[in-house]
Amino acid sequence: MTPILKRLPKHIGIIPDGNRRWAQLQGLPKEAGYHHGIDPGFALYELCMELGIPEVTFYGFTQDNTKRPAVQKQAFQKACVDAVNILANRDASLLVIGNSESPQFPKELLPYTTRQTFGRNRIKINFLVNYGWKWDLSYALNDKEPGERQLHERIASRDISRIDLIIRWGGRRRLSGFLPVQSIYADFYVVDAYWPDFHTDHFFEALKWYENQDITLGG
Amino acid sequence: MTPILKRLPKHIGIIPDGNRRWAQLQGLPKEAGYHHGIDPGFALYELCMELGIPEVTFYGFTQDNTKRPAVQKQAFQKACVDAVNILANRDASLLVIGNSESPQFPKELLPYTTRQTFGRNRIKINFLVNYGWKWDLSYALNDKEPGERQLHERIASRDISRIDLIIRWGGRRRLSGFLPVQSIYADFYVVDAYWPDFHTDHFFEALKWYENQDITLGG
Repeated sequence: MTPILKRLPKHIGIIPDGNRRWAQLQGLPKEAGYHHGIDPGFALYELCMELGIPEVTFYGFTQDNTKRPAVQKQAFQKACVDAVNILANRDASLLVIGNSESPQFPKELLPYTTRQTFGRNRIKINFLVNYGWKWDLSYALNDKEPGERQLHERIASRDISRIDLIIRWGGRRRLSGFLPVQSIYADFYVVDAYWPDFHTDHFFEALKWYENQDITLGG
Repeated sequence: MTPILKRLPKHIGIIPDGNRRWAQLQGLPKEAGYHHGIDPGFALYELCMELGIPEVTFYGFTQDNTKRPAVQKQAFQKACVDAVNILANRDASLLVIGNSESPQFPKELLPYTTRQTFGRNRIKINFLVNYGWKWDLSYALNDKEPGERQLHERIASRDISRIDLIIRWGGRRRLSGFLPVQSIYADFYVVDAYWPDFHTDHFFEALKWYENQDITLGG
């Protein structure tokens, strides 16, 4: 049952970690875990729509991740393509952010590197795909446009807004390169369960915790 | 008693939060808390030396913080000056990083904006003073030096190395602008107690927790 929440985050970041550890616990090969991360993502999307959360960003995969064994790489690339395809044609606007000039970037996702709006456009969904924090920040150095814009207004991910709450599954308490600029003031909630074991209660517990955090933005 | 630790962080970031909340609990005015944060910092420095941790960075105050009431601002500026003076002439090398061109930067700390080495130089200590993440990152845009250096090699804080473990006192689970580039892969440990209530056990619990985290650096 959906709890009553007085203060909701406007933008949630999701780090869906633990797919490989989950697969190993099931006696499956590591790469089998990623496919089981798609349904949880869709469940979370529906919950956010229901609650009226305006924006959600999913950590798909990073440039660092692509150094993993090829069979794993292919599995998480496919899972990202499948996840985006499931969300396309729903009531969302989709944006995929990452280095799309690299062969590691799935071609099927190229149409989403500019924001695509579907249906009643009830929520913004961003996917980080072949994303790298160095790539994101260094992008600003190539921005030759003059003017007073500061660095955070010139990075590759500048169209993604400040994040209020980051929820990470899989127990690790680190950002692992997830949108360093947008995460500056984010409250960080860690779920010990692995992402394929996603349960709506994890999400509601994070929201209930967030409700009791004060917002200072450094003031 | 110092526990036996098998794997130590090479660089620890300290967010000493909760000084004002601590003061209020004591029935003191908020600004009275900062002075009580100096001894804990010195205790932590001695522990790190004893353990052989090579580098520690303390979050002093930020450009955002200077918007607080003047009496608070003067109190945390003074606490930073006092803390650096206590550590000078010991066995450490000290570096103060922040916007030193601003009147908010305490003049007494100007000599430390280039690293000063004292005594047997057993540990690197960095203080963030009048630091701002936007200032730090945007610094890279003014770096006209040609070459292939990426953004993270051009920021104002580029002489501060990657952080392995961040320990935040005061219960909040956010980075609040603390060295976004160096914190990318840091494990993040939160102590609920307020900083003036620092106890060595907090620190050892953080180190024991850190020992059991794996390091992947995104791989």
